[in-house]
Amino acid sequence: MIREPILAINFKAYPTAFGIKGLNIAKSAEKVYKELGGNVEVIVIPPATELRKFKEELEIKVFAQHADPYDLGARTGYLPLEVIKDTGVDGVLINHSEHRLRLDEINFLVTKAKKLDLITLVCADVPETGAAVAVLKPNIIAVEPPELIGTGIAVSKAKPEVVTNSVDLIRSVNKDVIILTGAGISTSDDVDAAIRLGTSGVLVASAIMKAKDPEKVIRDMAQAAYKAWERYRKK
Amino acid sequence: MIREPILAINFKAYPTAFGIKGLNIAKSAEKVYKELGGNVEVIVIPPATELRKFKEELEIKVFAQHADPYDLGARTGYLPLEVIKDTGVDGVLINHSEHRLRLDEINFLVTKAKKLDLITLVCADVPETGAAVAVLKPNIIAVEPPELIGTGIAVSKAKPEVVTNSVDLIRSVNKDVIILTGAGISTSDDVDAAIRLGTSGVLVASAIMKAKDPEKVIRDMAQAAYKAWERYRKK
Amino acid sequence: MIREPILAINFKAYPTAFGIKGLNIAKSAEKVYKELGGNVEVIVIPPATELRKFKEELEIKVFAQHADPYDLGARTGYLPLEVIKDTGVDGVLINHSEHRLRLDEINFLVTKAKKLDLITLVCADVPETGAAVAVLKPNIIAVEPPELIGTGIAVSKAKPEVVTNSVDLIRSVNKDVIILTGAGISTSDDVDAAIRLGTSGVLVASAIMKAKDPEKVIRDMAQAAYKAWERYRKK
Amino acid sequence: MIREPILAINFKAYPTAFGIKGLNIAKSAEKVYKELGGNVEVIVIPPATELRKFKEELEIKVFAQHADPYDLGARTGYLPLEVIKDTGVDGVLINHSEHRLRLDEINFLVTKAKKLDLITLVCADVPETGAAVAVLKPNIIAVEPPELIGTGIAVSKAKPEVVTNSVDLIRSVNKDVIILTGAGISTSDDVDAAIRLGTSGVLVASAIMKAKDPEKVIRDMAQAAYKAWERYRKK
Repeated sequence: MIREPILAINFKAYPTAFGIKGLNIAKSAEKVYKELGGNVEVIVIPPATELRKFKEELEIKVFAQHADPYDLGARTGYLPLEVIKDTGVDGVLINHSEHRLRLDEINFLVTKAKKLDLITLVCADVPETGAAVAVLKPNIIAVEPPELIGTGIAVSKAKPEVVTNSVDLIRSVNKDVIILTGAGISTSDDVDAAIRLGTSGVLVASAIMKAKDPEKVIRDMAQAAYKAWERYRKK
Repeated sequence: MIREPILAINFKAYPTAFGIKGLNIAKSAEKVYKELGGNVEVIVIPPATELRKFKEELEIKVFAQHADPYDLGARTGYLPLEVIKDTGVDGVLINHSEHRLRLDEINFLVTKAKKLDLITLVCADVPETGAAVAVLKPNIIAVEPPELIGTGIAVSKAKPEVVTNSVDLIRSVNKDVIILTGAGISTSDDVDAAIRLGTSGVLVASAIMKAKDPEKVIRDMAQAAYKAWERYRKK
Repeated sequence: MIREPILAINFKAYPTAFGIKGLNIAKSAEKVYKELGGNVEVIVIPPATELRKFKEELEIKVFAQHADPYDLGARTGYLPLEVIKDTGVDGVLINHSEHRLRLDEINFLVTKAKKLDLITLVCADVPETGAAVAVLKPNIIAVEPPELIGTGIAVSKAKPEVVTNSVDLIRSVNKDVIILTGAGISTSDDVDAAIRLGTSGVLVASAIMKAKDPEKVIRDMAQAAYKAWERYRKK
Repeated sequence: MIREPILAINFKAYPTAFGIKGLNIAKSAEKVYKELGGNVEVIVIPPATELRKFKEELEIKVFAQHADPYDLGARTGYLPLEVIKDTGVDGVLINHSEHRLRLDEINFLVTKAKKLDLITLVCADVPETGAAVAVLKPNIIAVEPPELIGTGIAVSKAKPEVVTNSVDLIRSVNKDVIILTGAGISTSDDVDAAIRLGTSGVLVASAIMKAKDPEKVIRDMAQAAYKAWERYRKK
């Protein structure tokens, strides 16, 4: 269902995340995905208002940035997973550092997403909470120290032990979950390091969304992911 | 910008609120709007994922159910007003009883929506908070006692004094704001009473979204609004 | 019930706010209160854990920093107003910028506090929300622009128009409520300005709680309040 | 530091939880504790306003119902762990179903409580989240299905598999943590079942706090805990 390595792009609510600008960045992501023969899973994660449009226009995987931990019903202004699913998206980001959830809500969403056949990418702030999340058996976990998010200082450079500890702690309770590196990922070197240190790719945002030439950054990172995977991880 | 009387339909996150079912109800609303020569402002308020589609397909006013009180930027999973505006919608529901906001957040949203030329419909639970909201000068206020929402017991029947007190208290601080009646609106009689008691229409949800024949309910309510307006309120 | 002018001291959760340190600052406040013959209402506002002790040991008014907008019952870890009242305190701070509440919650607390004979001091961020709160008829309102809180830059100096606009806007909907100035109050000059600009005193925190000699700062401010009141406001 | 078996009494915000009524129930708990020679760890968990008083008057363990996941500083109306610790209490309840926390907040509190030498009792709603919490290494975990809380239908009777699954799942990631049974515990039989099914006692609230004779219920439950522990669990 999901290939490795992974380049997941969180559009956040940046001025480039929606409308024609957002769609253009998503199309660049699709172009790069095709250039690499589909060997790197490039995932775009736009605001909820863009989900239908993105799925109509794109062949790559699209995730929602969030879903609300409720069932369908009288829930004005909330987006339960069923509403998200109906847009055609492939998966959902859960518990991003800018949108943290209660533990019981994470469990609710992971459990229900499984039933709805939606891929779950759950964020955590430190290796310990990454391992706690791993017990709930999501598809993908990204460990992102909040103090590095948006700084341009990659966790894989500044705190490589966070990456390796995450892998060790998460693997001690869950052998199968895919692990990503996040926070501060800025260059293709950071992507290489993320994979070299034992994770399956990156969750990236500002380095692409705020770039002068987003397509170039996406291409550099996707190529780095491809090469690092071939070199360090392919069996 | 907004005509009176008003029939505002909150789709909430009901199973009928999104996808083809949601669009069909919205098209029924448009049909009724046209039948009445545009003399009743029929507003549809679907989940955020449906906003672009609704605006592409419909000529009637579309409002968002909620917006997040933030500026554009690193706000994963949130929808600032600029993102909402970009979908083409006409306005936004704020502070619904199922999605209450802090007072400073209501003020932030009303102030910013004005700059973005978005109509604001702010909900309140009792006449006193309705009057407090009126000080912030939104376009429309709906007073909805939460204990009646979804019950089928109309506030205009069960607690007509809530409606008249709301009008009195709100008018004591704001002469211009449009006032709606909400909570439990189920029949065309309830719509008639809402206008007779001095408000400009209704905010309704389950009576339409859970109806066997939503179009019929919309038509009955819109016609009642039209007649009541002609009878009681037209100068 | 409450005298003017007022010097309200928010202990927050500073290291000096609780235990023996907190009690010592509160006793200094009481000493200054007595020195001025009770002509300045000095109010101490410590963390919830300290309320009983403060009321046992002090004669001056003690307020809680917050109360939770719930009735008594199954509310683990929350403090409804009845629990707060039972400690013997005189009033409660509501909607501080570090603990904002929903509009309906503010109304719930103000209404219930009145029944329990507790004085309400409600904070607001800007003149507009101050006026909105005034509609709910609390006893005291403090307008504190959040961007100045804790900066040492007094609103009465940096933005005197916030103070005068607050007074004008609040008075347009409520003739009786007591108005305080907050945010950045650091010196006796700031207290003088607050009263000269038309409010009845100040809500202050860090300037006292982080002072080397809290008693001296309390005395300077209370004396300034007394003199300014005599000079500008006494009829 | 903690003995087994455990009878932990959550006072919640019931009318009997504070003031003289609350203290009387706590003294009954102490009396029963002494009658049983200290062989059952009876823990009382009152509202934050009562913590200092309880510690002055009682020899048994006192826990706080909640702590806020912040450091000391400008946190009006919040109670960081340092403030809680200063009252002299022995531990803190975290993530009760009526006061759920985000996963990162639970981790913050468990980690910091350890440094402050406070015992942590973390609640979870289902065995899966119980196991997730166990990864964070608190001292005690209570698994309480929210749908049973306050019903008088004990989880150990209605859903014994929740108890046994919790033990299995939690033990698969953490060999040392103490496990309690919660939700609906009403009789000494429920306490017996909780221990027979493999946990070390119960977290109980309404059955004691709403009892006509709280002391009798405490005694019955504590004796049942003592006997069950001797029979099923003592090595």
